[in-house]
Amino acid sequence: MAAETTRAAAEALDRADPLARERDRFVVADDDLIYLDGNSLGRLPVRAAAAVERMVHDGWGRDLIGGWVRWLTYPEEVGDRLGAAFLGAAPGQVVVGDSTTVNLYKLASAALDARPDRRALVVPAGEFPTDRYVLEGLAAPRGLDVRLVPAGADVVDALDADVAVLCLSMVDYRSGAVVDVAAITAAARHVGATVVWDLSHAVGAVPIELDRWGVELATGCSYKFLNGGPGAPAWLYVRSDVQHLRSPIWGWFGQREQFAMGPAYDPEPGIRRWLAGTPTVIALAAVDAAVADLAEIGIEALRAKGTALTTYAIDLADARLAGHGVTVATPRLPHRRGAHVALAHPAARELSRRLIDEHGVVPDFREPDLLRLGLAPAYTRFTDVWDGIDALAVLLAGGAAAP
Amino acid sequence: MAAETTRAAAEALDRADPLARERDRFVVADDDLIYLDGNSLGRLPVRAAAAVERMVHDGWGRDLIGGWVRWLTYPEEVGDRLGAAFLGAAPGQVVVGDSTTVNLYKLASAALDARPDRRALVVPAGEFPTDRYVLEGLAAPRGLDVRLVPAGADVVDALDADVAVLCLSMVDYRSGAVVDVAAITAAARHVGATVVWDLSHAVGAVPIELDRWGVELATGCSYKFLNGGPGAPAWLYVRSDVQHLRSPIWGWFGQREQFAMGPAYDPEPGIRRWLAGTPTVIALAAVDAAVADLAEIGIEALRAKGTALTTYAIDLADARLAGHGVTVATPRLPHRRGAHVALAHPAARELSRRLIDEHGVVPDFREPDLLRLGLAPAYTRFTDVWDGIDALAVLLAGGAAAP
Repeated sequence: MAAETTRAAAEALDRADPLARERDRFVVADDDLIYLDGNSLGRLPVRAAAAVERMVHDGWGRDLIGGWVRWLTYPEEVGDRLGAAFLGAAPGQVVVGDSTTVNLYKLASAALDARPDRRALVVPAGEFPTDRYVLEGLAAPRGLDVRLVPAGADVVDALDADVAVLCLSMVDYRSGAVVDVAAITAAARHVGATVVWDLSHAVGAVPIELDRWGVELATGCSYKFLNGGPGAPAWLYVRSDVQHLRSPIWGWFGQREQFAMGPAYDPEPGIRRWLAGTPTVIALAAVDAAVADLAEIGIEALRAKGTALTTYAIDLADARLAGHGVTVATPRLPHRRGAHVALAHPAARELSRRLIDEHGVVPDFREPDLLRLGLAPAYTRFTDVWDGIDALAVLLAGGAAAP
Repeated sequence: MAAETTRAAAEALDRADPLARERDRFVVADDDLIYLDGNSLGRLPVRAAAAVERMVHDGWGRDLIGGWVRWLTYPEEVGDRLGAAFLGAAPGQVVVGDSTTVNLYKLASAALDARPDRRALVVPAGEFPTDRYVLEGLAAPRGLDVRLVPAGADVVDALDADVAVLCLSMVDYRSGAVVDVAAITAAARHVGATVVWDLSHAVGAVPIELDRWGVELATGCSYKFLNGGPGAPAWLYVRSDVQHLRSPIWGWFGQREQFAMGPAYDPEPGIRRWLAGTPTVIALAAVDAAVADLAEIGIEALRAKGTALTTYAIDLADARLAGHGVTVATPRLPHRRGAHVALAHPAARELSRRLIDEHGVVPDFREPDLLRLGLAPAYTRFTDVWDGIDALAVLLAGGAAAP
């Protein structure tokens, strides 16, 4: 389809956007900055800033140790709220805490230990690095094989009766491609393998129904589309019927009767056993507020806007950038992609730098040749997309430096 | 020695206290609250509150993804500053991140993997629970023995050529007793075992010289005497010559050329390989500011004041509480204790509750019979000690409930 490529058309789309006012939920320190990197670090919600300040002054400063009466259960409470709003998870299956990496380690390790008879782990060769490294680190001391699924191949074809664990993202961090979580989970179950889902680039961008899809284990970060802040604690989902699995990290926050400080580890029966150490309360407050804020918009509205933004970005890239050698590396079927768009060009690194330095447009760059445009639905305007792609067109017309 | 037991004497001690003004560094929301729990959660430094606000608004809100140019190395930078001020650690050996539990897991796991020929781990039966649980969790799948050293026994006597790892606190979380880190480290080395030191109750309270003492591996939390905030990221020390050991959690923050996102895990040669996932930047800002603030007072002055406070508390307890059946469970030699004092009484639980509810005095309670008084040197006044012990004497004279 031929896009209407004028800025006036983008302005009209913004005027017609039912989520246009949602941008006011966020601190926009520099309204001239075209921020297209909400898939790396989401903007600061006004409510999250207030929540942090309240937690620091009223919680830490005033309540002091007394605050722990509330905070002991805070990781589960934020988890339940996140689960209900964005994960399709019934209560008691999600906790917020630790990093995505540490959570991947806990989940993959537990899944491996449950299948000591099996010798293989499967992960796409192009999976997000930390996922691959975590699996490598688990496989090496156990002498297991990590099967790297090459680009373009179907991960399901790599599954067989020797596979203990498959680790996979729902939304690919590079292309934005979405896979069918329910189908892959079922295929893995069919051969007796467990999938550890990484939903970092999906949560807050696409509807997720973990319970309905039959997912057993999942984790994801909170600082991308969830806007939980830089390095925000990640979340972890363990379906209620597999919570008997054991995290390798036995910590006091997973202990039944934690303050009895008993002689032996005796973990909580439920999701709490997946906690390890003391949760970072101030950072949790930011995640809590950010999730509550985004939940008011609702994932259906966010998804609709996200799809409109990515569709618009792809159409505009086709119209204005294809002639300069830019190709769209993101699936063209709307339901097959998340809320970011990847554009391939040999000079992507240089283009990314010049977009930031010369045009105040912030995309990100991924080796070797990708520009990612993260189009966070809650605050990204159609004019942001237009301005970003226009700047790119200007740079390319002027001749970007060779790669 | 007979203590001068009047409140006027405590007031005189406060007037003569060279650190009296340091209390102004902290937010004191309720000046009537007698806070004797700085060993559980340190007070909020004014500078930490400001640093968090700056990080939220200027870092996250304004710099957005651009902030990561600075934050990528933040865990090491805060680690170096903490190491110089409070750990006796030369640069490049400390990172701040993850919880104490996760760090204990990383260190003990790495130490175990370095000695696959050995079958035993040693930990005091009365060690802080999470330390014991972490070791149990490492031992169970490997079929190793955890030797629990009974109260009163010398951990060194439990060491032999079959021991891979000893895990131990420098300052006991219950009694406040200090052990000789250098001597125990040397004894362990003599039999080829590695000590993982937990310095949670020591750091910021007693002088620590990790490099000089020959320590190889240590961790500790940042939310007690360091005042880093509830659940603040912990720190981790790995001596430069043993950094080739491998953390079991292979994550992208430990990867050389992190953003090349290469095909295989290839860890940084230095302390960065001990990082795992994305660090919690907002919480790091609080630790950074809190440590910098406390460093201005200096550990020698803090130690002197801490010793004076604990000496005063013990003298006052002897004079006013011994007749009510309270015994001091903390070593009487000043250099053998940290900055908290434990008082044993059968009704400690009830006394703790009533101190809080009826007297606005906040100690903490540890099963089965201990009241802990945390006397954080930076902000605790001699009159706080007097008021706390006076309230306890009043309760006991009125007849505390039976246990």
